[in-house]
Amino acid sequence: MDRPDSATSSVSTSDDYVDLTPEYAREILDALHEEDTTRVAELVGELHFADIADLLGWAGSWERQQLVDVIRPDFDPELLTELDDELREEVIAQLGTAAVAEAISELDSDDVVEVIEDLEEAEQRELLGALSEIERARVQEALSYPEYTAGRIMQRELVAIPDYWSLGQTIDFLRSAKNLPEDFYDIIVVDPRYRPVGMVPLSRAIRTNRPVLVRDVMETEDMRTVLVTEEQENVAHLFRQRDLISAPVVDDNGRLVGVITVDDVVDVIDEEYEEDMMRMAGVGEEDDLSSDILDTTRSRFTWLLVNLGTAIGASMVIGLFQHTIESLVALAVLMPIVASMGGNAGTQTLTVAVRAIATRELSSTNAWRVVRKEVAVCTLNGLAFAVLSGLVSWLWFDNMRLGAVIGVAMVINLIMAGAAGAIIPLALERAGVDPAVSSSVFLTTITDVVGFFAFLGLAAAFLM
Amino acid sequence: MDRPDSATSSVSTSDDYVDLTPEYAREILDALHEEDTTRVAELVGELHFADIADLLGWAGSWERQQLVDVIRPDFDPELLTELDDELREEVIAQLGTAAVAEAISELDSDDVVEVIEDLEEAEQRELLGALSEIERARVQEALSYPEYTAGRIMQRELVAIPDYWSLGQTIDFLRSAKNLPEDFYDIIVVDPRYRPVGMVPLSRAIRTNRPVLVRDVMETEDMRTVLVTEEQENVAHLFRQRDLISAPVVDDNGRLVGVITVDDVVDVIDEEYEEDMMRMAGVGEEDDLSSDILDTTRSRFTWLLVNLGTAIGASMVIGLFQHTIESLVALAVLMPIVASMGGNAGTQTLTVAVRAIATRELSSTNAWRVVRKEVAVCTLNGLAFAVLSGLVSWLWFDNMRLGAVIGVAMVINLIMAGAAGAIIPLALERAGVDPAVSSSVFLTTITDVVGFFAFLGLAAAFLM
Repeated sequence: MDRPDSATSSVSTSDDYVDLTPEYAREILDALHEEDTTRVAELVGELHFADIADLLGWAGSWERQQLVDVIRPDFDPELLTELDDELREEVIAQLGTAAVAEAISELDSDDVVEVIEDLEEAEQRELLGALSEIERARVQEALSYPEYTAGRIMQRELVAIPDYWSLGQTIDFLRSAKNLPEDFYDIIVVDPRYRPVGMVPLSRAIRTNRPVLVRDVMETEDMRTVLVTEEQENVAHLFRQRDLISAPVVDDNGRLVGVITVDDVVDVIDEEYEEDMMRMAGVGEEDDLSSDILDTTRSRFTWLLVNLGTAIGASMVIGLFQHTIESLVALAVLMPIVASMGGNAGTQTLTVAVRAIATRELSSTNAWRVVRKEVAVCTLNGLAFAVLSGLVSWLWFDNMRLGAVIGVAMVINLIMAGAAGAIIPLALERAGVDPAVSSSVFLTTITDVVGFFAFLGLAAAFLM
Repeated sequence: MDRPDSATSSVSTSDDYVDLTPEYAREILDALHEEDTTRVAELVGELHFADIADLLGWAGSWERQQLVDVIRPDFDPELLTELDDELREEVIAQLGTAAVAEAISELDSDDVVEVIEDLEEAEQRELLGALSEIERARVQEALSYPEYTAGRIMQRELVAIPDYWSLGQTIDFLRSAKNLPEDFYDIIVVDPRYRPVGMVPLSRAIRTNRPVLVRDVMETEDMRTVLVTEEQENVAHLFRQRDLISAPVVDDNGRLVGVITVDDVVDVIDEEYEEDMMRMAGVGEEDDLSSDILDTTRSRFTWLLVNLGTAIGASMVIGLFQHTIESLVALAVLMPIVASMGGNAGTQTLTVAVRAIATRELSSTNAWRVVRKEVAVCTLNGLAFAVLSGLVSWLWFDNMRLGAVIGVAMVINLIMAGAAGAIIPLALERAGVDPAVSSSVFLTTITDVVGFFAFLGLAAAFLM
């Protein structure tokens, strides 16, 4: 975009930062390797802190060390909130706790919590020691709430006023007050016991004439308070469902203790999705690109071990039919088809169900309707693929009865796949377990066992 | 929470709505079946429109029809924005276009677009016809932008002022202006050609004294403009990365045409995740609980057909070794283990890679480092599971060489799985294809083929 050439030309246009493209990153890293520090500092200086965080993630460890030294003089502590846990620890260690402590004292309390909650205790103490007394108390209080609850993601900096003030009083208060949050979107109205009774969105506050009383313009219907111990997942659902921008957080006595804003919730949504996706694939949540090889290997080992167990189980089913296979080896050739189709059809159902439970489109109210539908869908596809796989097998091995057997086994396995794909996550949810976490291993165990058993069992009965 | 009993007791407390629990839903549906319409209306009346939308999704089609009649008298058009496409069509059809047209004229333009963009053309025309001329023009303009771009999710209602105004002038303007958006968070500052040059967050505007000039307090560094044709996925990334609450949208000439707010972006984040998750499982995006059985069957058929093709491919590999299996049927029993472990290890890598590409933690800058790491992780796990599966096979079939063969095949397949799991999504991304969409079918084809070929091939070479 070109710069405005009008009366306002002294004002810089919208975006003063350069976008971090892979090419731009390459340029920086190349300059690093050529030890052209001036150029590196110049190029990095053009980036927004969030892009610098991405760059640190893309860099190798030697490069990252060099880059941290480059950004050290103008270090923006908000960068720390954008890093993965492991990278954050590395960067903090390199910068030194003293420097970091000074830097994070500029942050809002929720950001400080995010930065320090996963650090080792000694480091945490050192950083906390460098904060002002008020801020330290705020952060320590936040850390006293369980992880993944509203208390961890809320900020303590907020604007609360009594409902008998006029808008004029409110605005004068805002103009003179110190220690307000940097950005806020709603003014929280509290009663004398400091319990929220309404909110005034800033867009309404600014449009209202000074003499009007707060109690006459405040929003009460669309305000939702959040309990400080509420799980962050439920908070995210609430924000999403009600299109909230901010919500007051209260303690057990209904007293205002903080505020959650939508930007924190966006992070939670990201985390929750990532968790679902990773759990379905059997990957730990802490498994990201910056974890080291041994940690990653160890965290994935467990899931693979479970899978080895279920695979051996499926093999034992095959083992029951060794003689059948010996007399018709085509069965060994074809049997993975039935199991694989069942696994895939079941995964389709499972994914739709896990997702629908997460968005609350699927609840116990419509559970049976959904199970019936999924079974119907899988039955129809089962019939279609019975015909297709039956024909292929008939032609391939010139054996019509073999074709019939694989067809019937296919229908049986796909019906089971549809039922299991819908019922497993519903049952896990009811048992209070995250439906994403172990659904797929249960599912493929069922589709493998049923697939092999149906196909080989039918073959033993009708082809021998 | 109990009501405040102090001076403010005339004010209702925070939340006037009842939460929709499955039990509450059951009560409503039971009352429906007992034809106790008064009770139904009473219970439904306690719910927020977003919860009513959930309830409509949970209900069966007869129940839904009854419920729509119950909410018809106080119909809140925002409810339509919370429904799935298919449900929305159904509800609109039942309410009648005339009633809906009147209702949606209250909505902001982005919400109107959301409601009507997926309707049939005739219905769309009818609803558009009922809007005021200005609003119709706005909506039609929005519909002229491609789906999934900034133009579709932005709203045209916005607050824009010149930078030479004082804050006092600005506030007076806001107090007297008509047609402002219901909620807004930033005031956009434009030059005489209507190009955004800065923004004033409301929290800053309200704290600034009246004589101060807008140009002296406006934010320029942290403002990001979005091109109207930008893909919504990139808009979401920007909001997330920069913690934005709103961003001005400009046309090719840099002129302000709309504004995107964070609540629209939250919806986009949801959509994009859902897309990734669904695509990895081979489920169409339009496949949700409310789609009918035949549509769902058809949309899943294609993916299963692809899977049938690849399963037959894997079977053909087994077919090459029929004689080997005939002389040692234990091979048929054990071979699914190698394939299954490869598929699972590969899926772990694939999921981490797809996710990291989506969050831009993985780019061409660090691609090779990630591939090397994933191969290393899979090699280590390959070695561990070589030992385990080798021991199990040796003991099971009392055949040490069989154990050695499965062990070596396991290492080979897991190395391939790690490499393929990382390289496939990177290659798809580079080719401009969504890495989620067909990664897993490529991956399991490779792990099946390599798994069967390595195991049976080694067996043919060393055990016969």
